[in-house]
Amino acid sequence: MAGGKKKKEVKKETGLGLSFKKDENFGEWYSEVVVHGEMIEYYDISGCYILRPWSMGIWEIMQVFFDAEIKKMKIKNCYFPLFVSSSVLEKEKDHIEGFAPEVAWVTKSGKSDLEIPIAIRPTSETVMYPYFSKWIRGHRDLPLKLNQWCNVVRWEFSNPTPFIRSREFLWQEGHTAFATKEEADEEVLQVLELYRRIYEEFLAIPVIKGKKSEMEKFAGGLYTTSVEVNKGHGRGVQGATSHCLGQNFAKMFEINFENEKGEKGMVWQNSWAYSTRTIGVMVMVHGDDKGLVLPPKVASVQVVVVPVPYKDADTQGILDACTATVETLSEAGIRAESDLRDNYSPGWKYSQWEMKGVPLRIEIGPKDLANNQVRCVRRDNGSKSDIKRDNLVEQVKTLLDNIQQSLLDAAKQKRDASVQVVKTWDEFKDALAQKKMILAPWCDEEEVEKDVKERTRGEMGAAKSLCSPLEQPELPEGTICFASGKPAKKWTYWGRSY
Amino acid sequence: MAGGKKKKEVKKETGLGLSFKKDENFGEWYSEVVVHGEMIEYYDISGCYILRPWSMGIWEIMQVFFDAEIKKMKIKNCYFPLFVSSSVLEKEKDHIEGFAPEVAWVTKSGKSDLEIPIAIRPTSETVMYPYFSKWIRGHRDLPLKLNQWCNVVRWEFSNPTPFIRSREFLWQEGHTAFATKEEADEEVLQVLELYRRIYEEFLAIPVIKGKKSEMEKFAGGLYTTSVEVNKGHGRGVQGATSHCLGQNFAKMFEINFENEKGEKGMVWQNSWAYSTRTIGVMVMVHGDDKGLVLPPKVASVQVVVVPVPYKDADTQGILDACTATVETLSEAGIRAESDLRDNYSPGWKYSQWEMKGVPLRIEIGPKDLANNQVRCVRRDNGSKSDIKRDNLVEQVKTLLDNIQQSLLDAAKQKRDASVQVVKTWDEFKDALAQKKMILAPWCDEEEVEKDVKERTRGEMGAAKSLCSPLEQPELPEGTICFASGKPAKKWTYWGRSY
Repeated sequence: MAGGKKKKEVKKETGLGLSFKKDENFGEWYSEVVVHGEMIEYYDISGCYILRPWSMGIWEIMQVFFDAEIKKMKIKNCYFPLFVSSSVLEKEKDHIEGFAPEVAWVTKSGKSDLEIPIAIRPTSETVMYPYFSKWIRGHRDLPLKLNQWCNVVRWEFSNPTPFIRSREFLWQEGHTAFATKEEADEEVLQVLELYRRIYEEFLAIPVIKGKKSEMEKFAGGLYTTSVEVNKGHGRGVQGATSHCLGQNFAKMFEINFENEKGEKGMVWQNSWAYSTRTIGVMVMVHGDDKGLVLPPKVASVQVVVVPVPYKDADTQGILDACTATVETLSEAGIRAESDLRDNYSPGWKYSQWEMKGVPLRIEIGPKDLANNQVRCVRRDNGSKSDIKRDNLVEQVKTLLDNIQQSLLDAAKQKRDASVQVVKTWDEFKDALAQKKMILAPWCDEEEVEKDVKERTRGEMGAAKSLCSPLEQPELPEGTICFASGKPAKKWTYWGRSY
Repeated sequence: MAGGKKKKEVKKETGLGLSFKKDENFGEWYSEVVVHGEMIEYYDISGCYILRPWSMGIWEIMQVFFDAEIKKMKIKNCYFPLFVSSSVLEKEKDHIEGFAPEVAWVTKSGKSDLEIPIAIRPTSETVMYPYFSKWIRGHRDLPLKLNQWCNVVRWEFSNPTPFIRSREFLWQEGHTAFATKEEADEEVLQVLELYRRIYEEFLAIPVIKGKKSEMEKFAGGLYTTSVEVNKGHGRGVQGATSHCLGQNFAKMFEINFENEKGEKGMVWQNSWAYSTRTIGVMVMVHGDDKGLVLPPKVASVQVVVVPVPYKDADTQGILDACTATVETLSEAGIRAESDLRDNYSPGWKYSQWEMKGVPLRIEIGPKDLANNQVRCVRRDNGSKSDIKRDNLVEQVKTLLDNIQQSLLDAAKQKRDASVQVVKTWDEFKDALAQKKMILAPWCDEEEVEKDVKERTRGEMGAAKSLCSPLEQPELPEGTICFASGKPAKKWTYWGRSY
């Protein structure tokens, strides 16, 4: 807008803009963008973060979707305690080994010592399953399908990062028990599909659905599936996980039932979760050097309307047009807000809303008023278009849909470009050095994965398997493992984890 | 019906029915009804309880209502950490004194001692307000209106009771800051009205909106308003509270702003909360010797449809009619379920659904099938009526509305009958002995309340002020305080707290 560009008497230009670039210093850029974008405030306890309304709004939108979907699957919400006694926590050995170093312990109340220390849940398998054992008696009590939305605590010490690795985080955890393995297997994939939809349909992030290796699976479970995100630079992020626990916990917690024929059986169990980590992944994938870039489907504000007054122009007319525009959009179910603050220049406002990642900016100046139009500026690619006010809602909807799709397409393109298919150890090492995510034929042996880790140790972190994609490319007879030379059993993604 | 009554070959008649009566042994009755009604499971850590889907469903329905209402008020959701450092927790002295004995402390992670112990939030004033101080600079940052849905921990030792006094509970806590006291005052009452609506419109429980005495107000605040429930036997339950904090926390946490004229000011703050206690109050008010009685507006299942097959009758026809009935009701937005289990008799099913408090039972037997009708049985008063299937939805809706209203009316009648107006100390003592809730003219002096407590000490617990109703009856000139003989300033409710 001509008006906006000329009137550059900015009153408060301080504090805007990022000092780090995404490509140059990713870690610093990320910390800065989540704070300046008003997603996060750092907290005075290390590894804990405040989720401000700008990020909670995203969480709530995903929650509404996911909660409705699992209710269709007859999964019911419940709430189990935050606290777990040490004897119960330690009942499943492999499981507790995976979590023990990260468990926070309450030992005092007021000034008194507790008789025995009490743990804060790092996850709720051991919290819930003693009661599964109590509630499940016969086949008619099955399936038992519960979910809870809650906080969990994992007192990690390595490199806390907002959303991605925080000592407390929010998630949902589903815990289900079935009479047969078939039912459990089916649900694992049903839930995994919901996680895919959260990433692809809501966060505009392409994911790979896959199965984890024995080394990387959930401690104490039978097998783990996940949606994996390629965050670039050869680093994968585990987006969400859906585990089949098999009968291992059922054995430890004695979750038995009597079937139709009066025979004793043991249940098959699943657990599955996605967390506020999703929001961090979204920031990482879409954000740029101007700040956040929010996909329209999850943005609390999808459209911000900024007046661009000009000295001799009809300022009140412009402000009224802004208000009317927001009203029209809101009535059509579009989340729109105007920014009528009179102590900031349009340019300053543009920067601020770009920092906050609002998908579409509408500017209204004297020329727009005269032509009964508004100017639209896309956050994702900066492209501008003038649209008639008569046709506002339809065109804004189309623009928002296009932005959502463009973000997914761009992320896919980037992802595909950063994947390298390799067949030999030398190719693997080269690709790793080039920071590629690697797809390689593998023998699927635990010892070989350990060996790969050992051989790739270094300051970047060792390579590890990310997942074996559920949709496997063809594996010709006689293909050998890139690392061991043994016959390959499956294609598997490798990389470093973030 | 006839069929159901005759066919009494019950396969599993065990475990149903309550062993305690509400009027005879209230405490035991309550513990039993929340467990048998499948609201609660006792947990292996004392004072912690599992909220089963049957109670979470009630919580979720209230949450959807309240969350939408506060969003209309431009209050935004956020999430602050579970943990608070001791230095911050202890910043406001009166406040921490109120909570200190109940604070749970984390002192270890894994096998390591933390450098300094970290508290688990008993409430979040001190967690949040350092950041209010950071975020609020000028008058344009005001009002700041936040809310969070979360768990809090108060490690109480006295008489833990499911929902009512538990060591961990779920709640929402709103925290807002304004430029002026007028705005804060207004919001306190707006929120109090939402709490009244939760109790009266959803839980069918009449409440008194009132103001707390100086002794009973929130530690560190300016004044506290509440909705008070009379649970009978002269005992009041604080239903939910809306506090004006004044400028006390603002002073401690330096929450200042510059107004339009460039002058420094201090914000006025409120905080307000309701918790899962609401559900316990509902159980106490409506439950009876057959179990829970759920108001239709909050019941996860509003209508249960039970087939009543008879030996020579068209069993499949009856089952189909049940399924069709549920479908018709569900399509109309009524939460209905059928109970087609073939290993329980109709009578056993009736008892179970009565125990769980489902508001309306529909029975379909051969006669009903022949007459194209269903039999409706109300949970609240046991009354029966036959309704034509052509007209099902409309009549069921009317019945559910009637049940909702009847529950409120009955609770009001009981409440009104148990309130006694007194003017003298002797009348007060008599009314207290008769387990009445007492309305008395009071001088509103803290010393006098202390004195009342002292003088009424006993095994039933001392009397205390519950609230001064916002709607005051007329107080004629010259009325004197029931306890001190000084001039009375207001009518105040007194009783024992539950």
